[in-house]
Amino acid sequence: MSQANEKANRIATLPFSAHFDLASGLSNDYSSTKRPLSKMLGMYSDAEAFQVLVEAGDPDVYEFYELTMPDSANELLFGTSIVYPGRVGREYYMTKGHFHTILDTPEVYYCLNGQGYMLMENPEGDWKAERFLPGQAVYVPPRYAHRSINTGDVPLVTFFVYRADSGHDYGTLETKGFRKLIVDRNGQPEIVDNPKWSGER
Amino acid sequence: MSQANEKANRIATLPFSAHFDLASGLSNDYSSTKRPLSKMLGMYSDAEAFQVLVEAGDPDVYEFYELTMPDSANELLFGTSIVYPGRVGREYYMTKGHFHTILDTPEVYYCLNGQGYMLMENPEGDWKAERFLPGQAVYVPPRYAHRSINTGDVPLVTFFVYRADSGHDYGTLETKGFRKLIVDRNGQPEIVDNPKWSGER
Ligand SMILES: [Mn+2]
Ligand SMILES: [Mn+2]
Repeated sequence: MSQANEKANRIATLPFSAHFDLASGLSNDYSSTKRPLSKMLGMYSDAEAFQVLVEAGDPDVYEFYELTMPDSANELLFGTSIVYPGRVGREYYMTKGHFHTILDTPEVYYCLNGQGYMLMENPEGDWKAERFLPGQAVYVPPRYAHRSINTGDVPLVTFFVYRADSGHDYGTLETKGFRKLIVDRNGQPEIVDNPKWSGER
Repeated sequence: MSQANEKANRIATLPFSAHFDLASGLSNDYSSTKRPLSKMLGMYSDAEAFQVLVEAGDPDVYEFYELTMPDSANELLFGTSIVYPGRVGREYYMTKGHFHTILDTPEVYYCLNGQGYMLMENPEGDWKAERFLPGQAVYVPPRYAHRSINTGDVPLVTFFVYRADSGHDYGTLETKGFRKLIVDRNGQPEIVDNPKWSGER
């Protein structure tokens, strides 16, 4: 599509604002999407601990806000993500993680509260875990899958912004997982190889 | 340039993080750009009050962080903006304001501290002033010029994200100004017409 055509077809967005509490990340302007643990079957390494927690009440692991925006490279989506504190066996509570459907698009996360890591990896084999602490902004470059992990005792709250046409590809990581896990070792987070990870895509 | 060519020519960015204090907006990881009042000649309506303040010490009106990123629609730039409290005559301290050089690109601002307004207008004649309060996210749609205005007693701190190829066009507004001014009236902010504004572009 030519640039001229794209402009003609664009749905004009208008200025607006929305509130996300700086401490809790919660908004009264939108409803959040909640992820109970049962929706993460197969994504934690300790299957037995997973089953026990699901049967004991299936806790919410995280929640986040998804706004609606025209599916365009010329719009930005934003919201907050809240990962609750907890563990499944030795593995800390985390988001499913995803690639962007348009793989070559980035994202910015700004940590408002709590602590943990943004775990990232790209199909070319690079990976990185950037520390989340209040006030820390993390850049997720194009091509990097990303997962937020809460290694602390309070909710990990981040504000995120990404191109509105990026899209989410959860499937690849649901089956393969990330190369690395972040687990508790004597009260401290430790980055270890994921024994279930396979290089095949 | 075709999509394939653009990918081949891209400079790969890597994961990184940077700190911006949640209360002050200040970063130890980068140097900020400071705007002393004297750099805003002709941009406040009260020329006499402007001159008195410049001669009395030329205070910094605002400062902000500009990161470096490949000039690409597939990267995002981010940082903080800090507008200090103060007035020039009845007009509150504010940023110069700008259009994006690629007019059809948006920006997200998230208010961390202080209070004020994001004043926006597009070439088609629409304008809007969205309130900044801690936790308030403001969406600046494509085509909207934007200026942050501090109507409070403490620094107005915002975290912003925009497409790395957007660019800044300050010139248009330096000569014409915005359609509206935000001024103090008996201790309260009031939005008034800009007597110097001209519709000619
Ligand atoms: Mn994402
Ligand atoms: Mn801008």
